Amino acid sequence: MSIMLREIREQPRVIEKTLQAERKGLEKLRRQFEKNRPPMVVLAARGTSDNAAQFGRYLIEITTGIPVSLAAPSVTTLYRAPLKLEGALVAAVSQSGESTDTNVVLEAAKKAGAFTVGITNEATSTLARLADYPMLVRGGREKSVAATKTYTGQLLGFYLLAWALGADIKMEDLERLPEWAEAALSLEDEIGARAERYRFMEQAVVVGRGLNYANAFEWALKMMETCYVVAERFSQADILHGPIAMVGQNFPAFLVAPTGVTWPVMKELAERLAGLKADTLMVTDESNKMAPKGAIRIPAKLAQKGPLPEELFTPIPYIIPAQMFAAKLAVLKGLDPDRPRGLNKVTMTL
Amino acid sequence: MSIMLREIREQPRVIEKTLQAERKGLEKLRRQFEKNRPPMVVLAARGTSDNAAQFGRYLIEITTGIPVSLAAPSVTTLYRAPLKLEGALVAAVSQSGESTDTNVVLEAAKKAGAFTVGITNEATSTLARLADYPMLVRGGREKSVAATKTYTGQLLGFYLLAWALGADIKMEDLERLPEWAEAALSLEDEIGARAERYRFMEQAVVVGRGLNYANAFEWALKMMETCYVVAERFSQADILHGPIAMVGQNFPAFLVAPTGVTWPVMKELAERLAGLKADTLMVTDESNKMAPKGAIRIPAKLAQKGPLPEELFTPIPYIIPAQMFAAKLAVLKGLDPDRPRGLNKVTMTL
Repeated sequence: MSIMLREIREQPRVIEKTLQAERKGLEKLRRQFEKNRPPMVVLAARGTSDNAAQFGRYLIEITTGIPVSLAAPSVTTLYRAPLKLEGALVAAVSQSGESTDTNVVLEAAKKAGAFTVGITNEATSTLARLADYPMLVRGGREKSVAATKTYTGQLLGFYLLAWALGADIKMEDLERLPEWAEAALSLEDEIGARAERYRFMEQAVVVGRGLNYANAFEWALKMMETCYVVAERFSQADILHGPIAMVGQNFPAFLVAPTGVTWPVMKELAERLAGLKADTLMVTDESNKMAPKGAIRIPAKLAQKGPLPEELFTPIPYIIPAQMFAAKLAVLKGLDPDRPRGLNKVTMTL
Repeated sequence: MSIMLREIREQPRVIEKTLQAERKGLEKLRRQFEKNRPPMVVLAARGTSDNAAQFGRYLIEITTGIPVSLAAPSVTTLYRAPLKLEGALVAAVSQSGESTDTNVVLEAAKKAGAFTVGITNEATSTLARLADYPMLVRGGREKSVAATKTYTGQLLGFYLLAWALGADIKMEDLERLPEWAEAALSLEDEIGARAERYRFMEQAVVVGRGLNYANAFEWALKMMETCYVVAERFSQADILHGPIAMVGQNFPAFLVAPTGVTWPVMKELAERLAGLKADTLMVTDESNKMAPKGAIRIPAKLAQKGPLPEELFTPIPYIIPAQMFAAKLAVLKGLDPDRPRGLNKVTMTL
């Protein structure tokens, strides 16, 4: 079995451990933000961590109303432009905590008077040391080059950060995430069988929307780095503004589509793709009675009570079938998912 | 000749007319921002206009230090989350001014107390009416489905907006943009000849960095919508964080690479791609003495005096060879660039 697949399976435990360990410190952070609410949040990350930040962006805006920006590191690292970030919350996300550019962004933000958070898997990393508030993903060492358990750990980190910023997120719902992750993991054999027909796939589009937009990015990235599939990632709206032209008969499309406020537009896209005779595979869950035949259905009831959108807690379970799909497809293609061509675990960029 | 190519050729005149017509109103806006400097800027757009906004994001952050966020429209249109945007500057960008989602975002921002700007080609559009400050691209009606002249017009709009926000941009430099655009247009025959060897290309990566990152998005979008090439767009840093694994021998890579602060990392990437035996085509200009043989060189001296990065004014001339490349390649592939499969000029999304 690949290290990647082994680490995919560890995710329920990582989520549980991270939630246990991190929730205590958060009460204090929440009180601090109550007195001193940041007017804006900036998130800095690369690769998989940047996809997690993309989720964080939607989550924080939706649940707190605070505008969030995804940092453009080159503004700081190459152009050396001093950003006016006084009072802002700036969070860097990095599995290793040694990503040069995001650390440079965090340091510059600190100097500019921002409050800094570092979400990382490594307690002794530069990022953990730099940040005013380090938040640790308790993933153990991640050995797979393709990040999986640290991604879902980072997603959890963003639920916790949103909670600290005043979001009405219930800890009981977060406590159920390991169970939902387990439910997704139970699909492993089905996913392995389904991946077989994609043996010769060379290109694809992956589409999500809102809280699951980040998962479209992450699914595409996993297919790019482990299967060498040219997988383009889009929001449901963006693909309609041009790129849909390249989708013809048999073009592979992957959709991440829970029920909730994004469902009507995702369903519309699925119908449009069906009209184009594209080859569509949708990840959804059992509560979705309107999903097309052949969708991957996570066997957990994810419906959630309360005022928040019901898909608020889908991103962690929904990425797991996608991770397994990439890990299985890589092997079917004769590739080793643990040794992506030309990649190292820690990538240094400016 | 395609309408697309005809409109590509109109760009120097559109830039000139837009600059002439819009600069007057800006003095007042600049004085307003001097007294009341927005602490943050949010840009809302889709498709090509979103690529222009991506440029605007870098330009405004680099030249004014004000943090900029690219809006996630679904937060407003689908989740209906009220964002705290009091005092912010929120600009929507839309060729037609009738893009539903960006108009919804602008209206919500206005209600939340933001100052709103609308950058559009249509003076009588909903966007022009909604915005506190409408800024008009003087492109005449854009008939091509694939936007070209409105894209460069919007880029110019962002130079003007950055100037109004206090950026040290010289009007003399903006006045030279039509001439630089002409210089780029002079490459048309060369580009047509060079496009021939890409007749059978089905996938590609397009890479830029910093101020030309948006142009990588726009070049990829033009190839997706007119040539049906699965063209993935990346920043030079992001492609190294995973996607580089899919690039092997003969994989087509397109780089947008002026001299200046992004050159060392773009050069490094070009060397890495050469090591992988990828098939690389770079757009640069004559002032770049270190560009690899075979690069497309815009025959204008773009070097710029003063404290700003020398590549500050490259994005408008640099996208023109890319636009011509897509228009020519579409025809070589037997496609009609004016009739992309399944697209209309105005796309309505939420």
